[in-house]
Parts: sequence; structure tokens; C-alpha cells
Amino acid sequence: MLYQKLYDYLCDQIKQQHYLAGDKLPSIRQLAQLHQVSVSTVIRALEELEDRGLIEARYKSGFYVKAEEFRPELPAKSQPLVSLKPSLSKDVKIHQLASEIFHQCGAPNVVNLGTSYPDPSFYPQKELQRIGTRLLKQKMDDILQVHFTSGYLPLRQVLAKRMNRSGCHISHDDIIVTNGCLEALSLCLKAVAKKGDTIAIESPGFIGLLQLIESLGLKALEIPCLNDQGLSLQALELALEQWDIKALALVPSFSNPSGSLMPESNRKQLVEMLAQKNIPLIEDELIADLAFDGALIKPCKAFDQKGLVMYCSSVSKTMASGLRVGWISPGVFAKEIAYFKTFTNISASNFSQMLVAECLSSGLYDKHLRQLTKKLAKQVHYFQRLIKQYFPEETEVTQPKGGSVLWLKLPSNILSFSFYQKALALGVALIPGKLMTATQKFDQHIRINCACNPDIDVEYWLQQLGQLAFDMQNETH
Amino acid sequence: MLYQKLYDYLCDQIKQQHYLAGDKLPSIRQLAQLHQVSVSTVIRALEELEDRGLIEARYKSGFYVKAEEFRPELPAKSQPLVSLKPSLSKDVKIHQLASEIFHQCGAPNVVNLGTSYPDPSFYPQKELQRIGTRLLKQKMDDILQVHFTSGYLPLRQVLAKRMNRSGCHISHDDIIVTNGCLEALSLCLKAVAKKGDTIAIESPGFIGLLQLIESLGLKALEIPCLNDQGLSLQALELALEQWDIKALALVPSFSNPSGSLMPESNRKQLVEMLAQKNIPLIEDELIADLAFDGALIKPCKAFDQKGLVMYCSSVSKTMASGLRVGWISPGVFAKEIAYFKTFTNISASNFSQMLVAECLSSGLYDKHLRQLTKKLAKQVHYFQRLIKQYFPEETEVTQPKGGSVLWLKLPSNILSFSFYQKALALGVALIPGKLMTATQKFDQHIRINCACNPDIDVEYWLQQLGQLAFDMQNETH
Repeated sequence: MLYQKLYDYLCDQIKQQHYLAGDKLPSIRQLAQLHQVSVSTVIRALEELEDRGLIEARYKSGFYVKAEEFRPELPAKSQPLVSLKPSLSKDVKIHQLASEIFHQCGAPNVVNLGTSYPDPSFYPQKELQRIGTRLLKQKMDDILQVHFTSGYLPLRQVLAKRMNRSGCHISHDDIIVTNGCLEALSLCLKAVAKKGDTIAIESPGFIGLLQLIESLGLKALEIPCLNDQGLSLQALELALEQWDIKALALVPSFSNPSGSLMPESNRKQLVEMLAQKNIPLIEDELIADLAFDGALIKPCKAFDQKGLVMYCSSVSKTMASGLRVGWISPGVFAKEIAYFKTFTNISASNFSQMLVAECLSSGLYDKHLRQLTKKLAKQVHYFQRLIKQYFPEETEVTQPKGGSVLWLKLPSNILSFSFYQKALALGVALIPGKLMTATQKFDQHIRINCACNPDIDVEYWLQQLGQLAFDMQNETH
Repeated sequence: MLYQKLYDYLCDQIKQQHYLAGDKLPSIRQLAQLHQVSVSTVIRALEELEDRGLIEARYKSGFYVKAEEFRPELPAKSQPLVSLKPSLSKDVKIHQLASEIFHQCGAPNVVNLGTSYPDPSFYPQKELQRIGTRLLKQKMDDILQVHFTSGYLPLRQVLAKRMNRSGCHISHDDIIVTNGCLEALSLCLKAVAKKGDTIAIESPGFIGLLQLIESLGLKALEIPCLNDQGLSLQALELALEQWDIKALALVPSFSNPSGSLMPESNRKQLVEMLAQKNIPLIEDELIADLAFDGALIKPCKAFDQKGLVMYCSSVSKTMASGLRVGWISPGVFAKEIAYFKTFTNISASNFSQMLVAECLSSGLYDKHLRQLTKKLAKQVHYFQRLIKQYFPEETEVTQPKGGSVLWLKLPSNILSFSFYQKALALGVALIPGKLMTATQKFDQHIRINCACNPDIDVEYWLQQLGQLAFDMQNETH
């Protein structure tokens, strides 16, 4: 097998110390060109080296040779591979810890930079109050009476219109309203996978999705995200060849926590790649409206020819998380999803649906978005500047072009869970990277939400956190 | 076996024409006394006779000898019984038909006497509008922001207080708020049963529960309801001895559709009977507040010593179905249910929760209930009077002491599904009895909701329906 040749070659190179501990290997693309093999062959060889403890992958950076003391005895030649299948598709077990951490984020007297919902001051409070008061006055009958449908019709109509503006071709009949985006994701997963099945996800991944996968007894196969492109299509290609994957779930726009934005060409390619193998895509676009430059982003759904893309979204990041309004454009899975939705809870609150419909169709939502994205951009840049100013130089921080979260890599030897604990002792809550994975990756990473309560003295707290990072760095050196 | 002796005896009696076709057998209790055997022995003998086509059970009436032409050849002696297990616990398959029928109920220009939610004119519209407007003015932050808890605290507090007033002993920590009662029932079922398991339910049963059972791949074991006592404890006793039942789910107060109210002593006995075998009870009390005499009803939960009772309710029948607010007091299943709830949709709409909390704690709800129950009683009696006036004499109708539905048995030889179809052709929607069962029972029954739109000319439509019944009766004679 080609990858074994490459594996043997790299093994020898490391053994003969052509690459020393700490050295960076050539990039995947370079290795592919150098050895005239496919990208997936390179990835498989690198995974084998990583599995055997010779190299380590560093997020958004590359592959590095491990120090000798951390390596197992070096085999001269690679052994015939046993299937990697069981070791790669993981049971997820983050719920317990996630609950504890989110509980701390919401505790009184804790400065919450953890949860990624924006503070309500970022929501269009006055507009919603005005619309809500009018609805209570004029439409009480509609508000009080449950409807056995896929959702409030004017809401489905305006959602379809907005999706079509972004390049989709759907009607209001292709929309099912849910109680928030998590319910949407849950219904999609139920429609395509059963207990024990494997779902491919981004790595680092969205915590709620990982928890859902855990709660449904599914397994997660984590596909790396490279640089600012989001999900690596090469890694996905390899995964699709090697494993039985029931669906891919991802946040293509301003992914939480990496902030990466998948380019349009990649979206097209992704949808085609999945369509070829008839694998459904669960697309979570709830942050897509939050591009700092106000750009209209074409969702993967826009490239969906076969109806395999289940588009999910909500207004939780833009308008109100407490209203619990989300939706799905379910493609060919419409029947199953509508059925599961009915027997989850019949429908979402009418008032919430009517409020969102009115806010969207009146133009108030778009007006609000223009202000909100400016405000978020300013806030995110402010956090970035302060992190650069107060944290150790080695700290790496993402440069998202939308959304509200930053993903930090702390200096080597600072474990982010320990950093989380010490920060909490100071009075500030963050999210450690171990919640974003079912494996042991990201234990140097933390997520910070910049859309925090305006009463928080951000500079003071980031200075405190920076000092903590310095202290921990010095302790362990 | 004792029941075989009784079976043989009754068989002979019928064969020797001591009982003629159409004759009513002695009651279960009378047979038990007469033959000095237990009630469950009698039930088993009667079931065997029914299975062999010798007698038929008539709802709320008793057991009748079938006409000879409908009987199979009479065996002289009973055969050794094969296990009744597989034939009694049924897969439910009503969803498709239920969807079509409910769709018709909501169609424009159809007079809807079918769905059992009250028309919104029965809800406290003005009060909710006033409270809602105030909440929008004062608590926008709370309304817009999702909370990772078991529900809005003031709501859980007032619900616990009300339950304690009815004889329970719980705190707000024993309450989990859901998106309506169907979600509550769904979470309870998920907590105690997995695909293929059997749930005991009332017969006739609540349509939504039957559909839930179907959607979760469970089986339903239908326990008869006798007279006005609701679920037959004797039949349940037998079922518990004979079959592996994972839980019992029932509507003890004004059961939908039978309207029966389980007496307090039966509730106590029921909870003890289940506790002895460690079988959970899913108690759906969403109609308990609608006693025509305003009586405070003690739920089964009040007798729960072991925490096996999962109490479910909502405001959908009393205050607003469109708000989607329900709740569970989950007993020992709190952890599983809270977990499933989080990964269903995090929480219910905050606004809905706050609106319900405020309406309950201000006393407006109780005030509204006093008016509502009077109005419902009047309406139900009006329907009963008109049915007596316009329907064939043989029509039987329930005499509920609360709620809003009537359960009619049409004269023999009128199939209720055909009646439903012909009524729909006239322009009025009802629910045929076949939706209330997974078996072939109740094909002469229909459910009518008396809490209908006030613009409906009830007398005109009941006259039309009565005439239809006469026409169908004459056709088939």
C-alpha cells in the first residue's frame, strides 16, 4: 500500500534524525507533491505516525516530531495495519463536565465569558417589545391556540424568502419550525442515524452537537479543520473512503469555536462529494448572519441537488435565545423530521414564532443585523487587542470574520482545564478546549465569548487572565 | 386451572342456550362471587370466551352472548391455552389516519367538533394580554435569554405550591418545565421504556399517547375502563400478573375520551399495586382542573411513596395550548428526564413560562377556572340534551363530571368511521373511535368536543348529525 511506503520513509527519516524532535514535517500538500501520492495517502501515513507516537499534530499549524522520551520504541518497519475503525470513531463523554462548567458560567457573581450566546443587550429589545405588545393586542386568538402544522405560515414564508435570497431554491413547504436550533439538530440526527452509528463532525466541534451525539448514543468521527477554511475536505475524503459515516454535521459559517468560514467553492465541492456517496449533510448556519462585513453567505444548501442537505438555523445568536425558535429545511428527510417534530412537542410557542416572523418581514431584523455585526466586530477586535497586550507572546488567537467567539491556544505547558479552574477561582468563567472534542485534543485551548454583558470590565478581566497565563507559564517552566 | 373450569361452565351454558344470543352475562363481580373465584380468573375466562367469538364486550355495559351466525363452531371443552401475550400487547398504527383526520378538523369551512383543545374563546385572553404586555415592558432581559435550568423558577415554585395544595409533597426542584404535555409524556416514556417494550394504557385511550407509543416503537396493552371509575384495577391486576409491563400511562381525571374520573380510593390502591411491583406510573392530569363542581382532585402522585409516579400536566386545556407550557414532577426519574429534556430543546419559551407563572401566582388563573368550569358544564349539558333530542334512542353518551368531550356509542350497525366520513361530507368533523385504540374496538364510537367555536350553530349541526345517524341506521336495517 502506498501509504505504508510513505510511512516507512518518514519513519526512517525520523530514526536517522533527519527530522529532530520538535521539527515540523512538510505540509500535507508538499508531501503529496514530493512523493507523488494523493493527499489521503499522506494523511493516512501521518495518522499512522501519530498513532505510533512519533509525531504530533498541532492545531492550525502542522505535524511535529515528538521528543524521543515521549516516543515508544521505534519499529523498523510498519506492521500490517489493523483496522483503525474502532479507535477513530469515538463515543462522546463530555456531558457531565459540560453541565458542571455551564452551571458555573451561570452562577451569580461569576463573570461569564464562557457560554456563547450573546448577552441580551445585543438583542433588538425595543423592537421586539413593540412588536410583541402589538401582537398581544391584535392576535390573541392565534397566540393562544396550538396549530398542528410545520410552523406559523408567515414565518415559514419569510424564512424561505431569505434562504432563496442566499441562493437556495425552496418554498415555505420546505421549512419546519422547531424549538431552537438544538432541537433542529436533534431531529436531523434522529432522521438519519440510530444508536451506535457514526457522525462526522468538525474538530474542534460545537459543544451542543457533541452533547447531542452523546445523548443519542452515536459516535463522533472528528475531521480536522485547516487554517481558515474550516473542515478539511481532504481529511473528509479520506474519512468517507475509510469509514461508514451516516452523516456529516457542521457549522460552515464562523464555526463555534474555531470561527472558521468555509469558502463557497469548498461548500460546493463538499456537497458534491457527499452527494456522490449519498451521505446527508446537517448544516448548522445559525451564525451565518453575523459576518462582520455584512456579506450574504451562500449556504451548502444552495448547492444541494439531491435534497441531502438538512439546513438548520435559529435566531438565538442574533435576536433572542429565550424565544426558542429555530427551523430546518429538511430536503428529502421532510417526512421523518416532520413526524419526529410532531411527537417531540407538536409545535413551538406561537407567540415566539409570530414575533420572529414579524421582526424578519418588517425589515427590522436586517436593520438590527447591520448594527449588531458592527458592534460584534468592534467587540471581537477589542478582545483580540487586549489578549495581545496582556497574554504571553506565545498565545495564539483566532481571527474570525464573524460571530462572537475567540479560540485561544495557550502557551505550551499550560493545560486549559487547569487554566479554567484557576480563572474560575478568580471569578471568571471560560470554556476549556476539552469540551470541543471526544478525544484528548485541544487541552491547551480555551473559548472566550466577546458578546458579554456590557457591565463587565473586559480590560480588567483580560489583564487578570493574562497574568494568570504568565504565572502558570512560569510555574511549569 | 380455575379459569378453564369457569370457561367450560359458561361455554356449556351458552351451548345449552341458557344464555341466548344478545343476552347479557352476569357482571365480573357477580361471576366471581357466584363461582367463588377471583376477579382476575373471571376476566381471563371472559377473555377466552371473547377470543373464541362466543361473547362480546360492550363498552361500559358488560359482556353479551353473540348471535350464532357470528360464532365459530363451538368447542365442547376448552383447549389448552397458548400464551395470550403476543396477541394482547399491540403495535400501534394510528398515526397516518390520525394525521389525516386532524388535518380535516383544521380545514377551512369545516365545523370542528373533533380536536379536543378548547376554542381560544375559552382561554383568559384579556388577562393574558394584560400580563404579557407588562412582562414585555418590564422583563425583556429575562424573556430574550435562554436559561439552562429545569424551567423558570417562579413557575416551578407556583406549580409546586399548587400540587402540594392537592395533597402532594414536592418542592420546586421536583418540577421540570416542558414544551407542553405531549413533550412531558414523551420524556417520561423515554425514561422508562425502550423500543419493543410494552406500556399499559387505558382503553379507550388518549390519541396523543397512542401516537407517542407508536412513534417510539413501543407496544400498547389496553386495560379496560369500567363504568365511571376509569381504569379497571382488576383488569390491571391481571395484566400485571401476566405480562411484562414497563409502565402504566393514564389520564385519571376526566380521561380523554371516556370522561371517567378515577375515585380517590382507586388512585391510592393503584399506586400501591404498582409500587409493589416497582412499575412506574405516568400520570397525565392536564384535565384535572376542569371538574364541573370545582373540586380539588388528589392526583395519584399524592399517594406516591416510592417516587415511581411521574406527574405530567399543562395549561393547554385551561389557559392556552399555543403557549406550549407543560411540566413533569418526575419522582426518581428526575435525572434521566432532565437530561432528555436538555437535549430535546434546552427549555420552553421564557415568555410563555413567565406568562403562565404570573397568571397562576396572581390568582387570575383560579378566578378564570371558576368561570371556565361553569361554562364547560353548561356547554357539555347542552350537547347532551341535543344528542338525546336528535339522535336515535339507542345512542349512548357519557356523563362526564369535567372536561369538554363526550364519547358516544352509535346505534348498532353504524360504523363510526363511516359516520365520520359522512359527517365530514356534510361539513362537520368528529373523531371516530378507532383512533382511541390499537385494536379493533370502539368502531361504533365517536368523540365530540363541546368546547367549540362559539360561532358554531351547535343545535343545527347536532340535528344534522342525528339525522345522519337515523339515515345510516335505516340503511343498514
